[in-house]
Amino acid sequence: MQYFEDMPLGMRVESTETYTFTAEEIKAYASKWDPMPFHIDEALAAQTPLGKLFACSTHVISAGVKLAHTIMDKEVAAVAGLGWNDVRFPRPVLVGDTLKVVTEVVDRRESRSKPDRGIVTTQCSLINQEGDLMAEYKIATLVLKRPR
Amino acid sequence: MQYFEDMPLGMRVESTETYTFTAEEIKAYASKWDPMPFHIDEALAAQTPLGKLFACSTHVISAGVKLAHTIMDKEVAAVAGLGWNDVRFPRPVLVGDTLKVVTEVVDRRESRSKPDRGIVTTQCSLINQEGDLMAEYKIATLVLKRPR
Repeated sequence: MQYFEDMPLGMRVESTETYTFTAEEIKAYASKWDPMPFHIDEALAAQTPLGKLFACSTHVISAGVKLAHTIMDKEVAAVAGLGWNDVRFPRPVLVGDTLKVVTEVVDRRESRSKPDRGIVTTQCSLINQEGDLMAEYKIATLVLKRPR
Repeated sequence: MQYFEDMPLGMRVESTETYTFTAEEIKAYASKWDPMPFHIDEALAAQTPLGKLFACSTHVISAGVKLAHTIMDKEVAAVAGLGWNDVRFPRPVLVGDTLKVVTEVVDRRESRSKPDRGIVTTQCSLINQEGDLMAEYKIATLVLKRPR
């Protein structure tokens, strides 16, 4: 189990696994959750300035969460997810893009009210095959301290 | 088409459609995107303090985006999504919960660099069948002004 003490400021982990956005995955996800024409219609997407299908935001974030699972060697002693901040999409994720995730502990503090836990903020960066930053977000998590 | 001028501060819209989190949907989504045991194993979830399966965060946000589509009577003249902020999950979304979305324009300003567009920030609130706030987030969107 990974406790608050095991997550120092600056700890950085990079996934070895990746996720590729195929046309089938982009269309299947967006058809159900975010049915905008440029996410589901390849002929129409070909006429936009991007010239290709691109993935909807929630598909990109879901892929980030999926990849984050592949880099946890131990389960985090998480009590609750406190929320996400600064979710940004600097570039559209196009069909064929292959993403990895890089996570970094950017803030951590002890809980003011409960001495057995702390709050860890992790910056997650989704990077494509060219090394470009495609999406990023911060996740704050309430994590137990190591039991004494 | 809905332009910047058509989105005044305080404009509030509530969905008439809803989305229900069945055990099948919760397990199918989480199995693919966020395979934590308490999202996919009903027997294990029954032993947790919640006593029930609950949906993963990205499933909840995706449902919010899906419901937001049902309240747009006109397509928004959106140029780009600028990001999300203050994503919060005050309560876990449990199996059987039925959510609606309420959207409200909480900030708007003209673009400093481009006079033909503005930035609209919308607060999205996901409310369950009891009237409880289950999730909320702010989305900032770059929107065209009405052509002259």
